Amino acid sequence: MASESGKLWGGRFVGAVDPIMEKFNASIAYDRHLWEVDVQGSKAYSRGLEKAGLLTKAEMDQILHGLDKVAEEWAQGTFKLNSNDEDIHTANERRLKELIGATAGKLHTGRSRNDQVVTDLRLWMRQTCSTLSGLLWELIRTMVDRAEARVPVLGFAVHDPSQQDGRGPHPLLHQGIQLRAALRCLQTWPLRRWTSQGSSPFSASTSVPSTGSSLMPQKKNPDSLELIRSKAGRVFGRCAGLLMTLKGLPSTYNKDLQEDKEAVFEVSDTMSAVLQVATGVISTLQIHQENMGQALSPDMLATDLAYYLVRKGMPFRQAHEASGKAVFMAETKGVALNQLSLQELQTISPLFSGDVICVWDYGHSVEQYGALGGTARSSVDWQIRQVRALLQAQQA
Amino acid sequence: MASESGKLWGGRFVGAVDPIMEKFNASIAYDRHLWEVDVQGSKAYSRGLEKAGLLTKAEMDQILHGLDKVAEEWAQGTFKLNSNDEDIHTANERRLKELIGATAGKLHTGRSRNDQVVTDLRLWMRQTCSTLSGLLWELIRTMVDRAEARVPVLGFAVHDPSQQDGRGPHPLLHQGIQLRAALRCLQTWPLRRWTSQGSSPFSASTSVPSTGSSLMPQKKNPDSLELIRSKAGRVFGRCAGLLMTLKGLPSTYNKDLQEDKEAVFEVSDTMSAVLQVATGVISTLQIHQENMGQALSPDMLATDLAYYLVRKGMPFRQAHEASGKAVFMAETKGVALNQLSLQELQTISPLFSGDVICVWDYGHSVEQYGALGGTARSSVDWQIRQVRALLQAQQA
Amino acid sequence: MASESGKLWGGRFVGAVDPIMEKFNASIAYDRHLWEVDVQGSKAYSRGLEKAGLLTKAEMDQILHGLDKVAEEWAQGTFKLNSNDEDIHTANERRLKELIGATAGKLHTGRSRNDQVVTDLRLWMRQTCSTLSGLLWELIRTMVDRAEARVPVLGFAVHDPSQQDGRGPHPLLHQGIQLRAALRCLQTWPLRRWTSQGSSPFSASTSVPSTGSSLMPQKKNPDSLELIRSKAGRVFGRCAGLLMTLKGLPSTYNKDLQEDKEAVFEVSDTMSAVLQVATGVISTLQIHQENMGQALSPDMLATDLAYYLVRKGMPFRQAHEASGKAVFMAETKGVALNQLSLQELQTISPLFSGDVICVWDYGHSVEQYGALGGTARSSVDWQIRQVRALLQAQQA
Amino acid sequence: MASESGKLWGGRFVGAVDPIMEKFNASIAYDRHLWEVDVQGSKAYSRGLEKAGLLTKAEMDQILHGLDKVAEEWAQGTFKLNSNDEDIHTANERRLKELIGATAGKLHTGRSRNDQVVTDLRLWMRQTCSTLSGLLWELIRTMVDRAEARVPVLGFAVHDPSQQDGRGPHPLLHQGIQLRAALRCLQTWPLRRWTSQGSSPFSASTSVPSTGSSLMPQKKNPDSLELIRSKAGRVFGRCAGLLMTLKGLPSTYNKDLQEDKEAVFEVSDTMSAVLQVATGVISTLQIHQENMGQALSPDMLATDLAYYLVRKGMPFRQAHEASGKAVFMAETKGVALNQLSLQELQTISPLFSGDVICVWDYGHSVEQYGALGGTARSSVDWQIRQVRALLQAQQA
Repeated sequence: MASESGKLWGGRFVGAVDPIMEKFNASIAYDRHLWEVDVQGSKAYSRGLEKAGLLTKAEMDQILHGLDKVAEEWAQGTFKLNSNDEDIHTANERRLKELIGATAGKLHTGRSRNDQVVTDLRLWMRQTCSTLSGLLWELIRTMVDRAEARVPVLGFAVHDPSQQDGRGPHPLLHQGIQLRAALRCLQTWPLRRWTSQGSSPFSASTSVPSTGSSLMPQKKNPDSLELIRSKAGRVFGRCAGLLMTLKGLPSTYNKDLQEDKEAVFEVSDTMSAVLQVATGVISTLQIHQENMGQALSPDMLATDLAYYLVRKGMPFRQAHEASGKAVFMAETKGVALNQLSLQELQTISPLFSGDVICVWDYGHSVEQYGALGGTARSSVDWQIRQVRALLQAQQA
Repeated sequence: MASESGKLWGGRFVGAVDPIMEKFNASIAYDRHLWEVDVQGSKAYSRGLEKAGLLTKAEMDQILHGLDKVAEEWAQGTFKLNSNDEDIHTANERRLKELIGATAGKLHTGRSRNDQVVTDLRLWMRQTCSTLSGLLWELIRTMVDRAEARVPVLGFAVHDPSQQDGRGPHPLLHQGIQLRAALRCLQTWPLRRWTSQGSSPFSASTSVPSTGSSLMPQKKNPDSLELIRSKAGRVFGRCAGLLMTLKGLPSTYNKDLQEDKEAVFEVSDTMSAVLQVATGVISTLQIHQENMGQALSPDMLATDLAYYLVRKGMPFRQAHEASGKAVFMAETKGVALNQLSLQELQTISPLFSGDVICVWDYGHSVEQYGALGGTARSSVDWQIRQVRALLQAQQA
Repeated sequence: MASESGKLWGGRFVGAVDPIMEKFNASIAYDRHLWEVDVQGSKAYSRGLEKAGLLTKAEMDQILHGLDKVAEEWAQGTFKLNSNDEDIHTANERRLKELIGATAGKLHTGRSRNDQVVTDLRLWMRQTCSTLSGLLWELIRTMVDRAEARVPVLGFAVHDPSQQDGRGPHPLLHQGIQLRAALRCLQTWPLRRWTSQGSSPFSASTSVPSTGSSLMPQKKNPDSLELIRSKAGRVFGRCAGLLMTLKGLPSTYNKDLQEDKEAVFEVSDTMSAVLQVATGVISTLQIHQENMGQALSPDMLATDLAYYLVRKGMPFRQAHEASGKAVFMAETKGVALNQLSLQELQTISPLFSGDVICVWDYGHSVEQYGALGGTARSSVDWQIRQVRALLQAQQA
Repeated sequence: MASESGKLWGGRFVGAVDPIMEKFNASIAYDRHLWEVDVQGSKAYSRGLEKAGLLTKAEMDQILHGLDKVAEEWAQGTFKLNSNDEDIHTANERRLKELIGATAGKLHTGRSRNDQVVTDLRLWMRQTCSTLSGLLWELIRTMVDRAEARVPVLGFAVHDPSQQDGRGPHPLLHQGIQLRAALRCLQTWPLRRWTSQGSSPFSASTSVPSTGSSLMPQKKNPDSLELIRSKAGRVFGRCAGLLMTLKGLPSTYNKDLQEDKEAVFEVSDTMSAVLQVATGVISTLQIHQENMGQALSPDMLATDLAYYLVRKGMPFRQAHEASGKAVFMAETKGVALNQLSLQELQTISPLFSGDVICVWDYGHSVEQYGALGGTARSSVDWQIRQVRALLQAQQA
């Protein structure tokens, strides 16, 4: 009977398993990713059995030798799967038995398949986390390198160019973000930043590795960034799906848990690709200063105008209101904010005087924010030094 | 004992329920939304009991009268909840007993609390779906009304103005979408369109009911659209959470199902607000034609240029490639696509001749797509008529 | 240039695409599922082009013939993919050109890749929905067939045998559910029922196609049902992930949408397997009447005891409380509910008399619920006839 | 104009905001939770402004004094909200201005509303995490206290009593789990364990704070555990919904982010209740030893039977198969596993001898697993000591 079914659980079941069900049940198609850690885990376990007196030294050596042979076959691509190998553990155990005979059966003393699965997955996770962490540091390093270029870029408050409406004010919000200033957020929570934005300020000119449209010859699609953005859904979906699978399970092992492996493999592969493509985008990113310059608009300096009044002694809330009136006045007259005359500004507040002209200098605007996390060169340089120190600590 | 606890389940439990647990368990804070359908359901049920001979005519009348009184108290805001009213059903049952005495106890013959909950929720869902459906039709009607204005707007291929890069081509993709042409997608799956976009082409000048920034006086935030967009998360989260709660439940009723009510109430309230605000945005939307005009760029006509060659006999794939070369040539020379001379174009293909000048007419571009779903006036008018017919059928 | 890159978008891009990015971008690994509908769609489109005068009859015939050849190669497994075939559409177009030359380029007149993707996916969805629908009807038919067996099974209120506590009452709740009675819920929302329960009443003896434990020789795992249950997570995760990918996309096509295909393919494959395995489980399910009988307990009849009092004229709420007192009394005395003496019952209510003995008949309990959806044989037979009628209507 | 609208953003907007939109926009209904941290944050900020020379000492003192007054009003329940107070920050700012005049306007120098929101939420999160952490430790402490009782409980492999089928073996899997042994998993990932199971081994007799059924007098519902289980959906849904809201947002602040507060408040409230109710359940849990004893079945010792053969020298895989044959033989003969005669066992393997009788001792079975994480008393005691040490370290 046991020999008929060829299945692990031995003598009890009479008759074969339904073939559709067998396919539904089998995980070998994806858990072969685990071959290396499965062999590692079994080698460690056989050493433990020998220590506990459950294997003789000779039996352990026989098993270790056989497992090395199994690993060699996987590494060289010569391992042959049987139709009965429902998972990587069964496959390796079957092959070990072919190689060294009945002693192979002693390897599983006191170890359930579930113990083995858990051990393998932990070993695999440890290696994978280390790999992904390395790719993440590579992305950060690339950003710091590019940050040295000191090219100021704009942050965009809205992602819709149609915000340009008839009343005039430009939709772009000048936060004085410089490429370098983005380091901090990337360091703390890089993925959300990428997945939720996909765009500014880095995509300013993401024309390389971008692809074209099959219909519109003039179109260049920021494919790499769109694909990165799309992966947020894939990673979230896999995590949400796994939580759903876990929900409501009774205690002890459930076959349901087999779902975890495809999920972690896919998330790992996706994260690896996303980090590498993001690194590629950043390293080849070109920022076109003249276009950046053209995107600037005096309206962006309305906050600076308010601070001008604050420096003259006006409480901020009043200054904010006064600056808002100036913006409205400019809109009404159909001119840029910096084209209002001094007399016009003085109808809003008598605190305005000739030195208001200094407000209309974008470079000055960027440099005035010198606090922690600010946009002044000194502030950004400090941030770069911090990240460089982290990178060095990481390497050591 | 039973009288001490004052709880429904009568004589069996000794001792009181823990107060924290009682609060955890109680649903009255939100299921009071159901008062009206609870009374409706009980009235119908008492009629059924009378028909089945389980209530006399007099008992039924007494119960119906009492239930009307309960409803009156809710409607007038005079219904007083006891601390023991753990849900709307208990509250109404308790009040009915106070009003008409022991006969009230006969109302629950053969009806479990779960039967009652399910019936109430179904009645409530029926009313709510009808309300939401009305609001959705109102939104569609508003869009059709605005569509009559025949203002062409741009569709935007990317949501990032920083796509303007040094090589020249404008980021905007001229698909020839007109406001009217959007009707079809809104009719089929309105919410995704709104929540996933929040923006173009409708937000072209969504300056009303928008709010300002507390820091930046020049900034106008498209709050209404951002809030609509944000609600996608709330609605999705409630649905996903409810599915999670359902997962893995054993058969028959589980207390877990109590979670459903807050979810449906919140989703209903959210959808109602979203539909009304969206209707408000559309009805007050202003499209600024001159800005739309300025956003046009000859590069958008590259596909038309390819079709020009197709009309001259070139297979489309070749024509696409030829047009791509023209775009590249214009970029390299730093001129707009329509500023390439005829000689320059002829270096790409000898099929170009003087009549290529017709390609550079935006109006002509829009009008040439006359197929189903196209942008030509005739095509859009046909779509409007279709939606108007649907609206009329709906009202009838 | 174009020839160098070998990519569709022709002459504009200079230099190659990054190989990592190319892999990230390519979808051919999974969208080859679409080969058949892609050919079907292109054949229909070429007929449309001929009608519109954009292809001559000869060109159309040449294209149709070429497409048939492409389909033949896929069907026979001889279609050879190139490294440049990034998706099924590119692959088929490339092959068509090899087969019939430049005329192939005319097939794409006025059709963007996105048009093609959408058309293909719709065609595929139509076929897939039809297949899944057939499998669902097969499951329902199997359930009706088994329902004819008229074996009463228990519904279980809790999924935990540890509910057996020291106070005696058995954890099982006798709802009088019969296997046949489950038809209705399955008909209306089969998946939730399966995925949220996995278990009763059908798993009563789901010993086939179940597998064993690698550690515990006596254990039989209901693998098939656990795997079905686990797929709820996979299907939910894919749907949630796709919604996440859609969220926040700007209008027009985004490369992000490429994520949809793997999701629909996986959900379709999963649903197909789940439906077939569920059908297998139901068709081979054995219900062991003696075990069912042993699981019955007089406590389950407490509701019937309450109804006994209702028939004697007591309002239900009072009867419920009285029956609760009887349960408590039996627990306290350590006897089964039906072992309370008449005198003991009469201390709870004087309405109890000798005929209370009729209450303790399980068959009578089941037969008394004759209303719509009830458990009486007549009621269940009516339900079976309804489903049979639906099945016949479906076939016609 | 500004004075008309009474809104923060001052002079620019003409006309009122739509009332529906205003309600949609307002967050005061829930962000009043933040009143305390909002005052704390503003006090710290005013000290910073004084240090930076942007406030005089006198102005700072005036602001600090006013903020203390604001806090006092909230604490005493005398703070009155205006209809224009759209959020907690506006409300506190408005009140501060009423209390101390124009100086209040200086508090917001260089601080945007978003800075303020982020600061407030961080302060609130810090306090809340500390509170929840305390409740979690209380739950763990309660479990360790109960674990001292050394009552062995069963782990259940399936959550369905219907697993009892005609072939005899009891569905319960004897893993030798003792209540104490559950500590480790609870310490590492408590929530999943609770939410995904709700049940064994702790619910063995969770009859307190449980409630009854309105229909079935004999039924006791494990309401507390069902409600805890149900909250997995609520917490997951809120997290998933918030991630959905974040997805696809452009950089800089978006009004969408307003959704975060209700989510974190609800998750925090839910977790707090869940932890307290779980602590209540564990502390009042009664385990009925006689019922536990009755649930034991010799079949559970099949693994022990296999190990008996391993100790006699048989490789585990063979021993597993032999034990499986014994289970099958017992099923076929309709007897319990330990009722097979020695002769019968010897037909399976000649290694069986008279000492096989020692296998049928449950206590011996539990005690034989003495490794890390095992069920032997010594092993569990070691685990208890570990958790006690953690608890002490936590308090210090």
